[in-house]
Amino acid sequence: MTITITAFEKSPDGGKGLARDTRVRWALEEVGEAYEVRLVSFSAMKEPAHLAIHPFGQIPTYEEGDLALFETGAIVFHIANRHAGLLPDNTNARARAITWMFAAVNTIEPPILELVTARILEGDKPWTQERLPLIRDRIRNRLEQLSVHLGGDDWLDGPFSAGDLMMVSVLLRLRPSGMLEEFPKLAAYVARAEARPAYQRAFAAQLAINDPARQ
Amino acid sequence: MTITITAFEKSPDGGKGLARDTRVRWALEEVGEAYEVRLVSFSAMKEPAHLAIHPFGQIPTYEEGDLALFETGAIVFHIANRHAGLLPDNTNARARAITWMFAAVNTIEPPILELVTARILEGDKPWTQERLPLIRDRIRNRLEQLSVHLGGDDWLDGPFSAGDLMMVSVLLRLRPSGMLEEFPKLAAYVARAEARPAYQRAFAAQLAINDPARQ
Repeated sequence: MTITITAFEKSPDGGKGLARDTRVRWALEEVGEAYEVRLVSFSAMKEPAHLAIHPFGQIPTYEEGDLALFETGAIVFHIANRHAGLLPDNTNARARAITWMFAAVNTIEPPILELVTARILEGDKPWTQERLPLIRDRIRNRLEQLSVHLGGDDWLDGPFSAGDLMMVSVLLRLRPSGMLEEFPKLAAYVARAEARPAYQRAFAAQLAINDPARQ
Repeated sequence: MTITITAFEKSPDGGKGLARDTRVRWALEEVGEAYEVRLVSFSAMKEPAHLAIHPFGQIPTYEEGDLALFETGAIVFHIANRHAGLLPDNTNARARAITWMFAAVNTIEPPILELVTARILEGDKPWTQERLPLIRDRIRNRLEQLSVHLGGDDWLDGPFSAGDLMMVSVLLRLRPSGMLEEFPKLAAYVARAEARPAYQRAFAAQLAINDPARQ
């Protein structure tokens, strides 16, 4: 059955790989599944046809036969659960890898989203410059704990897993801020993940859509 | 094997059920699994023994034999995955229920956490009163979309699932704000979930620890 995902017709980041379809592309590349992409405009995302598969009017979505999913974490989990390569077979190790998927989206990402929100939605507010250091310190607290956990290991818990894929995808959102470089172990962790051929293919595929030369 | 979870020795909410151990208790009650509780103080949460099972020094954790997990969403998923009652057997319906678990923690909860952060960590800042309406409007956007999706249904996708358990738990954090009542369908959805005997038992168990009469 053909897998079809959705992505921005024109990504707000201009192809830096921060749009969430990159996470899904990466997972599909890791497990070696081909996929098709349907591009959606900002206005189409808010229309009934798209809202029928994504109640919050965002991308990405995932369609395969009768199944339609939204929410990146859930899509990556679905791919990892159905194919070998992104979750360990051992029951306990598998539960721990899934733990890191949730930690990425519910412990690490919320303060990072606050930074994005402050910059974009409250960028013109008089308080934002004074707030940014507070938000950065909250992010640093989490990064410090994450860095301690990682220690000298390559990945969060044993071999590379969907937990690492989600965590690295979340950490990449910090790249524009320069904060990742304050934590050398995490910077190396992210670089290790970006060097994976599957990530490279996913990144190139989203860039090809947003490449100015293509417009 | 005995299941042991951790909870606050003294919950910051005084037993209103908003501490995240309630989510895990509720899941265990729904599937009929007995569990023990180890109470941890705020200082013990930051000590090596606790950090060894929870890298971010929080509660709840979940221990069962050799397995130690943290991160509420992951613990609820682990319980739902191993026992009947919280996830449909049908493959596609199961994937959709898991989608709602991730939507709860990664789409609905982040703006709600911003409200909590603004009130608690930035409560003394001069900008907070002016920021609160902006945050509330971002929450309302999501609640409106969620309410439209729910429509006249009892639960988010077919029978009650771990997706509803997580979503209701996240929405309950809004109760002190009064915002839930602006969306009658969501208020009724939350009330329907709270009326479940499993939720009632979970709520009573966490309240018993925080009951002033017990101190």
